[in-house]
Amino acid sequence: MELKSINLQEKLDKFSEHWSPKIIAQMNGYHFKLLKIHGKFIWHNHDDTDEVFIVIKGEMSIKFRDGMVKLKKGELFVVPKGVEHKPSAEKECEIMLVEPAGTINTGDIGGDLTAEDNVWI
Amino acid sequence: MELKSINLQEKLDKFSEHWSPKIIAQMNGYHFKLLKIHGKFIWHNHDDTDEVFIVIKGEMSIKFRDGMVKLKKGELFVVPKGVEHKPSAEKECEIMLVEPAGTINTGDIGGDLTAEDNVWI
Repeated sequence: MELKSINLQEKLDKFSEHWSPKIIAQMNGYHFKLLKIHGKFIWHNHDDTDEVFIVIKGEMSIKFRDGMVKLKKGELFVVPKGVEHKPSAEKECEIMLVEPAGTINTGDIGGDLTAEDNVWI
Repeated sequence: MELKSINLQEKLDKFSEHWSPKIIAQMNGYHFKLLKIHGKFIWHNHDDTDEVFIVIKGEMSIKFRDGMVKLKKGELFVVPKGVEHKPSAEKECEIMLVEPAGTINTGDIGGDLTAEDNVWI
């Protein structure tokens, strides 16, 4: 065990690309990931797991087939498993995701925006 | 699914007692809990699970038998399962914990500081 705290902003300052989650910590089988987002992501869902979004800086939206939720700095939302969602941010937004290790960013949809799923920073 | 974000500070402003975790969200079998701490907690460990600490406001320390880690606002630390630890804060500190539903704050030790384990706020 390394006796060192993980500073979220220091980790975020190490990369600039969008929609490319970086793992910063593991708890049991779960990963804590940092992510910068800008623009609109694709509709997708995760059949096997809930997914937690926490906004560190800026604002984002998550569209659902029947509505939308807006999230700003210091806010959290749990997308239930199996529910189609489409994240977006008008301006760059920094977020933390919590989800099981191996969760793919594009869920069951895949495609060009699929990021590598095991990048630590 | 309620289409409403969870604002961490608004939830924290709803209570004042120390060492009494309040659940704000569930992801699969895991709870996200808010907690205000001040002073020294007891030595304890969680035999079956890692535990994540994230500081929302202020500063805290976690003592281990072989060292210590200091955490300030915007920092995260994972206490591995089975590892004895003793959280403390010289001034009041606001934190978020992530751990399996049903995790008891005093772990395997119990005693007077044991809080109810299923209080939502």
